[in-house]
Formats: sequence, C-alpha cells, structure tokens
Amino acid sequence: MTCPLEVIGVVRSGRTSTESTPIQSSLNRDEVGTVELFAPYGEGVSGLDGFDYIWLLTWLHRPDAPADPVPLTQVPFLLRPQQRTMGIFATRGPRRVNPIGLSLVRVLAVTAAQIRFAGVDLLDGTPVIDIKPFVTRFDRPGGDPRCGWFDSVAMPSAVTPAELGQGDSGSGSGGP
Amino acid sequence: MTCPLEVIGVVRSGRTSTESTPIQSSLNRDEVGTVELFAPYGEGVSGLDGFDYIWLLTWLHRPDAPADPVPLTQVPFLLRPQQRTMGIFATRGPRRVNPIGLSLVRVLAVTAAQIRFAGVDLLDGTPVIDIKPFVTRFDRPGGDPRCGWFDSVAMPSAVTPAELGQGDSGSGSGGP
Repeated sequence: MTCPLEVIGVVRSGRTSTESTPIQSSLNRDEVGTVELFAPYGEGVSGLDGFDYIWLLTWLHRPDAPADPVPLTQVPFLLRPQQRTMGIFATRGPRRVNPIGLSLVRVLAVTAAQIRFAGVDLLDGTPVIDIKPFVTRFDRPGGDPRCGWFDSVAMPSAVTPAELGQGDSGSGSGGP
Repeated sequence: MTCPLEVIGVVRSGRTSTESTPIQSSLNRDEVGTVELFAPYGEGVSGLDGFDYIWLLTWLHRPDAPADPVPLTQVPFLLRPQQRTMGIFATRGPRRVNPIGLSLVRVLAVTAAQIRFAGVDLLDGTPVIDIKPFVTRFDRPGGDPRCGWFDSVAMPSAVTPAELGQGDSGSGSGGP
C-alpha cells in the first residue's frame, strides 16, 4: 500500500472489507479498535491520555481501487438508494483526490505503543498519518449548522455500504 | 514549497507570517479568506454550498522551518507562557511528522473557482489538499469531552504565537 507520507502507525480492527465496514465512527461508537504506533513515534502521544476524543488522520488508498484519476463527482454511500451524485468535496467518501480519512474516535487507553479507541470505521491495516486531539473550543461550532444533503438522509447506526445498495462504477472499492 | 500530495487549491489570506497569524480559525471567526481552487477540481465542490462549515486540510510545510526530523515533543503555542512540552500528537501545532493542518471554517460563498470563508488561521499561499463537509452527526461528540491540557489554558480571541511569548528552539517557524 503506497503512501507518500510518513506512516506513524497502523489501525487494527476486525474489519477487512470496505463494503462491510461501518461508514463513520460516530455511527459505530462502541466497536473497539487500536492504533499500533511505530516505535519512534510513541514519545509523541505524551499528554494524549487527558483527552476523551481524538482525530485519526489515515491514508485510505486501497490496492483494489480503480486506477486514477478519481472521479470528482460520485454517489456517496448514503445516497446509494437514490443514486444521487455529489462533488467529492461535499462528501466524506474514501475515494478522494488525496485519500485522507478523518475519523473522530473515543480514547480508551494510551501507551507509547498503542491507542485503544472506540468507534471503528477503518479497515484492519489502514496506515495512520497523523493524530490530533479533539478540542471542543476549536472543533465544535455553536448552533445548529446546516449540513447540506446529509440533513435529508437517514443515517442508521453502524450502517455499511453493502446495506445501502450498489455503488456506482467508480465508488465501490475505495476504502472504508 | 514541496508537497508530496496533489494540491487542489491555495489559500488566500491577509496573513504572511506564522508568528502574527491567529493560531486557530475558531479563535478568529470573523476574518475572511478564500480558497482558490485549481481548474480541474471545481467540479468537486458541487453540493458544498448547502453546508455552513467545512474542514480545510492543508499542507503546512514552511520553507523556513528547521530541517527534519520534527521533534516529537514541543512547546505548543498556548503553553509558551509556561514553557511546558507536550507530545506533538497531543497538540494542534503545525510542525508535525506530516504537516497537515485541519481548520474548521465557516462557508460564505462557493463557486467552482473559489470558496470564501470566515475563520482565518492560515498563511497566504498555503496549499489545500482536501476539503470535507462538517457533518454534525459525525463531528460533534455529545456531552462535555475532556480536552486534556487545553482545559486549563486561556484561549484569547485571535491570539497569535508572538503574543504568547518566545517559542522553544524547534517550534518557532513551523507554519500557521
């Protein structure tokens, strides 16, 4: 799996296929996974155990994905029932120009070797490229923000792509 | 400015020096900036005008930054008064193993050529590598999450690194 960035660790989860992996960690809050940190980076998590949530930035390139370039409009997982397309930057889908995943997960335990977390939306073996603490003051806008097309779709707990129907030709194999 | 990823656009802001740029968009909510999207990517923002907030993922490498490797513990901007160090993955600082910035900004207007936004914490010229919609259901944990060392520091509006004191030897020139 080629990642042009420095890989700091790897996700361990019980998920091995995109189509059967929950599409968002917040829709699958209780499933537990771990980040195994590679040796030189353990020092970098000092202080992280004081946070309830972290952002995992991951590299979602899948060896089975269609060749580049990625289509700039795609049918998001949640719009498979309607087969509606959206611009890729208005979706959270994994097949992106740069396949960077952003997962908000709950911290269970932190050591220099691994982070146990709850909220799995990542395949086993996904490379981790950054970890950032969730900071309420920075990351939580007030009020009731408009969320575009997400405001009018159902989001069942732990829903997987396979449960949402068939993908379009370009969106079926891009990662979790 | 070398970025190993595909650059989809560039930030235009009135900020040209890290030390005088507000450290977080949410602490500087009213200042307006733009993302100039490069031509092939305009199609990808279709549907984005229905969102109040977006995440800008940016590449924060600065040509004036010290040579690699980045220190894994650093004094964050907000801890300069105390000169306390933290693991880099417990901070939001710009000098990271992979210098990816995550900025939550408010959408003002979207066209295929540019996105006007409010909430500037980025230098003019910062490369944009991804844009994701803010989705309340995905990105806003309930309750009152613990936020580690951030819970015990003051975060004045629009505060800049320069206003917080001198950096340590490694943290002074890493980006916004």
